[in-house]
Amino acid sequence: MVDAVKRVAVLGSTGSIGRQTLDVIRAMPQRFRVVGLAAGKNMDLLAGQVKEFEPEFIGYPPENDDIERLKRVAGIKYDLLPLDEIAATPNVDIVVIATSGQAGLAPTLAASRAGKNIALANKESLVSAGEIITSEAKKSGARILPVDSEHSAIWQCLGGESQEAARIILTASGGPFRQFSFEQLAEVTVAQALRHPSWRMGKKVTIDSATLMNKGLEIIEAHWLFSMPYDRIDVLVHPQSIIHSMVEFIDGSIKAQLSYPDMRLPIQYALSYPERLANPQLPRLDWALVKNLDFELPDYDRFPCLQLAIEAGKQGGTYPAVLCAADEVAVELFLDGRIRFTDIAGLIERTLEQHQLVAKPSLEEIEAADAWGRETLLKTASGVK
Amino acid sequence: MVDAVKRVAVLGSTGSIGRQTLDVIRAMPQRFRVVGLAAGKNMDLLAGQVKEFEPEFIGYPPENDDIERLKRVAGIKYDLLPLDEIAATPNVDIVVIATSGQAGLAPTLAASRAGKNIALANKESLVSAGEIITSEAKKSGARILPVDSEHSAIWQCLGGESQEAARIILTASGGPFRQFSFEQLAEVTVAQALRHPSWRMGKKVTIDSATLMNKGLEIIEAHWLFSMPYDRIDVLVHPQSIIHSMVEFIDGSIKAQLSYPDMRLPIQYALSYPERLANPQLPRLDWALVKNLDFELPDYDRFPCLQLAIEAGKQGGTYPAVLCAADEVAVELFLDGRIRFTDIAGLIERTLEQHQLVAKPSLEEIEAADAWGRETLLKTASGVK
Repeated sequence: MVDAVKRVAVLGSTGSIGRQTLDVIRAMPQRFRVVGLAAGKNMDLLAGQVKEFEPEFIGYPPENDDIERLKRVAGIKYDLLPLDEIAATPNVDIVVIATSGQAGLAPTLAASRAGKNIALANKESLVSAGEIITSEAKKSGARILPVDSEHSAIWQCLGGESQEAARIILTASGGPFRQFSFEQLAEVTVAQALRHPSWRMGKKVTIDSATLMNKGLEIIEAHWLFSMPYDRIDVLVHPQSIIHSMVEFIDGSIKAQLSYPDMRLPIQYALSYPERLANPQLPRLDWALVKNLDFELPDYDRFPCLQLAIEAGKQGGTYPAVLCAADEVAVELFLDGRIRFTDIAGLIERTLEQHQLVAKPSLEEIEAADAWGRETLLKTASGVK
Repeated sequence: MVDAVKRVAVLGSTGSIGRQTLDVIRAMPQRFRVVGLAAGKNMDLLAGQVKEFEPEFIGYPPENDDIERLKRVAGIKYDLLPLDEIAATPNVDIVVIATSGQAGLAPTLAASRAGKNIALANKESLVSAGEIITSEAKKSGARILPVDSEHSAIWQCLGGESQEAARIILTASGGPFRQFSFEQLAEVTVAQALRHPSWRMGKKVTIDSATLMNKGLEIIEAHWLFSMPYDRIDVLVHPQSIIHSMVEFIDGSIKAQLSYPDMRLPIQYALSYPERLANPQLPRLDWALVKNLDFELPDYDRFPCLQLAIEAGKQGGTYPAVLCAADEVAVELFLDGRIRFTDIAGLIERTLEQHQLVAKPSLEEIEAADAWGRETLLKTASGVK
């Protein structure tokens, strides 16, 4: 078993997490084999990846008219599959869900039902459909392996502990505007918001990190991943992003996981689990350089998205799906220069206020809530303008 | 099993660790029962403990003429046993070795041979006879459960990991003289040296913390406890004593264990292992107060004891026993005002230089090296005066 080659499908292979997943696999070809690749955009990069890794399955959205070009460039001799079909293929040991946004939901659910090991980097699926995904995974024996650095840290800290944790402490860099006043926040530009102090990530998650919505979504994820009540999940701002999260146990002992901020480490851990693998490309903490680690409590007033997410999580039902959808649209509007940075939270809040909760929602009800959330945020935003 | 009452013998019950062990046991009488108590001094306190816990076995050095008084005060109706006999009694589940100095060696070895769970707070036994103790424990199935906060942290961080650690990072408060110059160190008084910035401990270990010899001894302990080569054990100065130590794994991921400095936590963990127990008396880290954690590399020039210990550990054989013995005497001389703080390292070094290594020593050879070390340090010191 220890030396077996794991067969990996990477959904969302052209995004930031997808590319770093392929970096890890490239570094240890004796341990991992890419059997599936899928992406929703960046056809040229996907074609190059297909040529390099020669997967057995390729996913590409049928509505994308680049398909013929992809087939030609990559020399594809077979049909393209939908993502949820790749996620459930018997031939796959681990499905890496690195697609961003709502597109991750269907393959995550398919992989959960198929009893797969799921390296989950997509936040939205667990946030909007955490109850369905975790209950399907429980039935099938699927295992959700977190790829987020925070959840990977918690998972590592829980290893070997037979009792449940007393408390989860999610660390947050605080984003680029940690020390901004209300007035400064109102004037934030897109370029400023895209300059994250410690992590290099995609645009959506970078903006979410600046509003702290990202941490809010992570609270909801942690709730589902670790069956942890919301009142036992705390957020702690830690600007250096060296401690990736902590777990407190009933005796007061705390475990923390540390490394330089580099997504390849949690990606590799999800792929190699339960083993750890030596990878010379991964950086080692140099304690001659790490002179201090700072901590502060989060400011819920200047960063209202954090509280919005906690409330949506506690309400449950379709609220988190609406939160996710509304946030996705609000971030797009901000990136397009159509709303201010500080409008993001207000618009999401007004959208949530208008929502009628559906408790224990079906997948269809979640999808409907998602669509409703997008539409309502847009309507609310145009009313504001 | 989970609810079984563990039968505990506390050797060295009147010292700092012994008293805190009884605090833990007092807080959860449904989980632990004191079946043995032993101390080498402070007869009145021992008598009080005997009255309170009504143990089955009591240990008291036969040469101590307070025995009759102890018997009268505590109302003892049975004979006193030597420590190594208590440590090996079938009726004992866990032996807490909290005796200080060389007196811990015989009971530790007896408990190792008897296949006991040994909550080991005595440094000297593992430092001077690590090879014998760990090999006897391996043969008998005895388990050494570290009580030092640093080794407890490492042990906790290793939990659930199936592969060996890449590196151990022992944290050190740096002691009260962390920022002292060579000149200031030469003028240090006993009162200053006994004022440790973060831990309340016995006199010997407080002075050892000030010279960093304590950290050096912990390196040797870590070598034996975790089968770790010396070149993969690092020391990192961390003045707040919140991170109690760290472990780095082959993928570069680091785990750390954190708490306020309070010995009751590692004591309780050794007693309750593999469980953790809720104990309202143990403090919780308050992140509103812990604003930053600082780190710096140790200065081997100003604190030569650290390097002396590493070298003695690497040389092996009887060197660590000589190191321990010479240090014990040097610290006594300093506490008596007979040598300066900065003489401690020099005297130990000159003692080690004169030693003829015995490789793979027997217990008798270790005891001889111990006696030789004490004598030689004294001789060297009187030559100096």
